[in-house]
Amino acid sequence: MDTQITNPGGQKSAGEAIYQQACEVITGGVSRNTVFRRPHPFYAASASGCYVTDIDGFRRLDFANNMASLIHGHAHPAIVSAVIEQLHRGTAYTMATEAEVAFARLLCDRVPGFEKVRFVNSGTEAVMTMIKASRAYTGRPKIAKAEGAYHGTYDFAEISQTSTPEQWGTIHKPNSVPLAHGTPQGVLDDVIVFPFNDVEKTLAILDEQAGQIACVIIDPVPHRVGLVPGTSEFVEALYDWTRKNGALLVFDEVVTLRVHYGGAQEKYSVRPDMTALGKIIGGGFPVGALAGRTEVMRVLDPREQKILFPHSGTFSANPITTTAGRVAMELFDKDAVDQINALTAKAIRQIIEAISIADVPVSLTGAGSMFRFHLKPIPPKTYRETYQPKEEVALIRELLDYLYLKENIMMINTCACMFSTAITQKEVDILTQAMLNGFRFIKPKLEKLTQEINQ
Amino acid sequence: MDTQITNPGGQKSAGEAIYQQACEVITGGVSRNTVFRRPHPFYAASASGCYVTDIDGFRRLDFANNMASLIHGHAHPAIVSAVIEQLHRGTAYTMATEAEVAFARLLCDRVPGFEKVRFVNSGTEAVMTMIKASRAYTGRPKIAKAEGAYHGTYDFAEISQTSTPEQWGTIHKPNSVPLAHGTPQGVLDDVIVFPFNDVEKTLAILDEQAGQIACVIIDPVPHRVGLVPGTSEFVEALYDWTRKNGALLVFDEVVTLRVHYGGAQEKYSVRPDMTALGKIIGGGFPVGALAGRTEVMRVLDPREQKILFPHSGTFSANPITTTAGRVAMELFDKDAVDQINALTAKAIRQIIEAISIADVPVSLTGAGSMFRFHLKPIPPKTYRETYQPKEEVALIRELLDYLYLKENIMMINTCACMFSTAITQKEVDILTQAMLNGFRFIKPKLEKLTQEINQ
Repeated sequence: MDTQITNPGGQKSAGEAIYQQACEVITGGVSRNTVFRRPHPFYAASASGCYVTDIDGFRRLDFANNMASLIHGHAHPAIVSAVIEQLHRGTAYTMATEAEVAFARLLCDRVPGFEKVRFVNSGTEAVMTMIKASRAYTGRPKIAKAEGAYHGTYDFAEISQTSTPEQWGTIHKPNSVPLAHGTPQGVLDDVIVFPFNDVEKTLAILDEQAGQIACVIIDPVPHRVGLVPGTSEFVEALYDWTRKNGALLVFDEVVTLRVHYGGAQEKYSVRPDMTALGKIIGGGFPVGALAGRTEVMRVLDPREQKILFPHSGTFSANPITTTAGRVAMELFDKDAVDQINALTAKAIRQIIEAISIADVPVSLTGAGSMFRFHLKPIPPKTYRETYQPKEEVALIRELLDYLYLKENIMMINTCACMFSTAITQKEVDILTQAMLNGFRFIKPKLEKLTQEINQ
Repeated sequence: MDTQITNPGGQKSAGEAIYQQACEVITGGVSRNTVFRRPHPFYAASASGCYVTDIDGFRRLDFANNMASLIHGHAHPAIVSAVIEQLHRGTAYTMATEAEVAFARLLCDRVPGFEKVRFVNSGTEAVMTMIKASRAYTGRPKIAKAEGAYHGTYDFAEISQTSTPEQWGTIHKPNSVPLAHGTPQGVLDDVIVFPFNDVEKTLAILDEQAGQIACVIIDPVPHRVGLVPGTSEFVEALYDWTRKNGALLVFDEVVTLRVHYGGAQEKYSVRPDMTALGKIIGGGFPVGALAGRTEVMRVLDPREQKILFPHSGTFSANPITTTAGRVAMELFDKDAVDQINALTAKAIRQIIEAISIADVPVSLTGAGSMFRFHLKPIPPKTYRETYQPKEEVALIRELLDYLYLKENIMMINTCACMFSTAITQKEVDILTQAMLNGFRFIKPKLEKLTQEINQ
C-alpha cells in the first residue's frame, strides 16, 4: 500500500494521517471510488463559491463541483439560509410537506415533458425507479441502453458501462458485459446494448427483441460515451421506434438537466416518456427524481385499485432537499443558464487556443456548461473511439495530478469540467493558463503515446 | 377521487388545498406511499422533540419518527447546531472529509462485527450494495430471504414482501411473488423464499439450491413478518448453514440497529458477514451504510488490482449526513439505549393493561424501542399468522385515523410505535389513555371481525 506522501519538511501531511485512520474503518479508505487517488485522497475542510480548501490548507479552484451536482458552487448564501430556516422546523416527518409540492411545481413548469414528479434520494434510485416503472407500465422485462453509458449503480443500468475491446464484441450487436463480478445471467439477458448515435445498427438491434423491450434509456449527452450530444436523427429514430413497438423512451438527465433551461431534451422535437433527475436539483443535498407523463407515472399512484408499482422511501422528498433544490433551481433561471453556457463556450474557445499554442494532440467534447478533454487529436464520436487504453488512462491521471498539485485546479476524474455559476472570466483565465502549462507538462509523453497508437 | 374534508366552519382545510395542488404535479399527490391517506395526507409545518404541528395547526405526539429514522425526535439542538456549522463550510465536495472517517470509526467501535464501513444514501441502496457485494464475493447469483420481510425497493430484495394467501403457495417452499408488475422472471428465479424462524423448513429450502446462494439475508426483527425477533436457534442455524455452504449471512439492520447498543445482532452468539444500515444513523438526513468483515468488504476496495464491485455515489458520505449521524449516535449511547428500552417496556405493560381493561382481542409484538399492534388475541409468530385480510386492514386504518384525528397521536401505518429519546413517561401515559379510548372505539367492529374469522 503506497500511502506515503511527505511535505517539504518531511512531516506527514494531515491528509495522509487521516487516510491512514480511514483505512482502518472504511474499505480502501474511501466511501466513494471517485474520490480515491494515490497516494491518498484529499480531505476537504471548507468550501465557498468555486473554491475548496483541504485540511492541509491548499485552496483549489473547483471545476468538479461534487461530480457536477453543485450548479452554484459551494455554500451559496441563499441556499444556506433557506436550509437553516427549515432545519429549525425539522428535517423529515411521517407526513408530506409544502416544500415538495412547490418544488415539483417548479420542475413541471420548467420542462414541458414533466407532467408529474416523484422524488427519491439519488440518481441511482431515480434510474432504478424509472426502469421499474417502465416494466410496470408495459409488463415487459427488458431494457435497452447505450454501450458505455453510465446510469448509476442499479445492476440492470450498469451493464456494459466499462466494456473493453476484449469484451465488447461486434458493433452490430455489442455484448452485455457485467460491471460487477457475480452479476446474475438473468440481468445480462434482460439488458440489450446498442451503439449510441448509430441509427441503423441500433434499430436493427432493437427490432430483434421488439416485443420484450419495456424501455430504451439514453443519457442525451452521455459522459462516458464521450460527452457528445445525441443527434436529433438518433433521438427521433428511438422515439419513432418506441411508438411503433409499444415501448417507452426514457432519458437519464441526472447530469444533463443543466445543459439547457429545459434540460438537454429541450433541443429535440420529441419528448421522452419519463426522465430521471438528480445532481443539481438537490441544491447540494442527496436527491433524485422521476418526472414524466401522467399516464405512465400512474403505475406509482397509491390511489389506484391495484398499485402496479408500490414504492416509498424514508428520506424521499424530505424538506431539506426539496427546499435547497427549489432555491438552487430558482436561481438557475434562463439568464443564469445562458450566462454559464456562454462563459463555458468562451472557456472552450480559449482552451482550444491553448491546445494550438502547446501544439498537442488534444480535443474537447461537451454541451452547455460541461466539457471533457480527450488525449486524441480528433474528438471521438462514439464509446469505442472514446475508450482509453491503460497508457492513456495513466497519462490522464498524470495531467489531473499536475493540475491538482501544481495549479490547484480540481476536475472530474475523467478530465472533465462542470462549471458552476460561481465561476467568472477570472477563473476561466486561470484555467486556460493552467491547461496550457498542463499540456506542455504532458507533451513529451503524449507525443510518444500518440506515435505508439499510430504505429 | 375523494379529496373532500371540511373543518367545522365548512371551509377547505390548508391540507386539503395543498393536496389539490400536489395532485397536479405529483403522482397521486404523494412522493412516498407511506404518507398517503384518504381523504388527503397531512402536511407538516414544523416539529420539535416528540411533537409535529401540521399546516392546519394541529399538534400531534409522534410515535412514527419519520418511519423510525429519528431516534432523538425532531430538531435536536445538538444535531441542528452541528449541521449549521458544517453547512457554512459546504455540503458535498469531490473530496473525502474527516466527518466520514470519524463516523465510520464510531460505528466500528460500537458493533463488533463492523470491521469496515461504506456509506450510501438510503436503506434501499444499503441493501442493494450488500446483495451486490455478496454476489461479487461468492461469484453466485441467488439470494435467500424471508417471506414477508421488507428490505427496501431493490427488486431482488422486495420479492414476496406482500405475498397473499392466493399467491404464497406451500409453507414448505413459499413462492417467489413479485411486488411490482413487470418484475423480470430472472429476478424471481434468483430469489429463494423461506419462512422466518422455521429452522427445519428453511434449511430444507436452502439445501435445494445450496451451490447457487450468494447470501441469506434477514432482518433480525422483521416488521412486516410480525415484529418478532429471530430466535437464537434460527440465526445460529443460518450461520452454520452459510459456513458449510460457502454463502454469506447478511443482516438488514436498517430499522433494528436501535434495538440494542450493538444492534439487534448483539444478542446472538454469531455475527453476520455484512450488515445494511440506514434510518437512525443519518440523524434525520438521507443515509445508508454497509458494514461488515474486512475480507468480504474488500470486493469494494478501489486499491485492488481487479475491483470486483466498482461502486460510487455522488452524495454518499456527504459531510452533512455523516456529521448529523455521528452526533445522533453519540447521543444514543448505552445509557440512552437502556432508558428508551426501559420506557418502551413500561409503555407496553401499560398498554397491555389497557387492552385488558378494554377487553379487546388485541396483541403486541416488538423489541427494544419498537412495538406493533395486532388485531388478534394471540400475538402472531409468523408472516402468515401476521397477514391481515382486507377487513382487518380497514379496521387498523380506522384505529389509526381515530388516533390521528381524535387523540392527536402519530403512528407508523402498520399500527406500530417507534420511540424516540424525546418521549417521557408523560407521553407514555397520554399514549396509554389514547389507546384505551381507541380500543373502545373499534371494539364493536373488532368483536364482529373476530367472530367472522373464527366462524
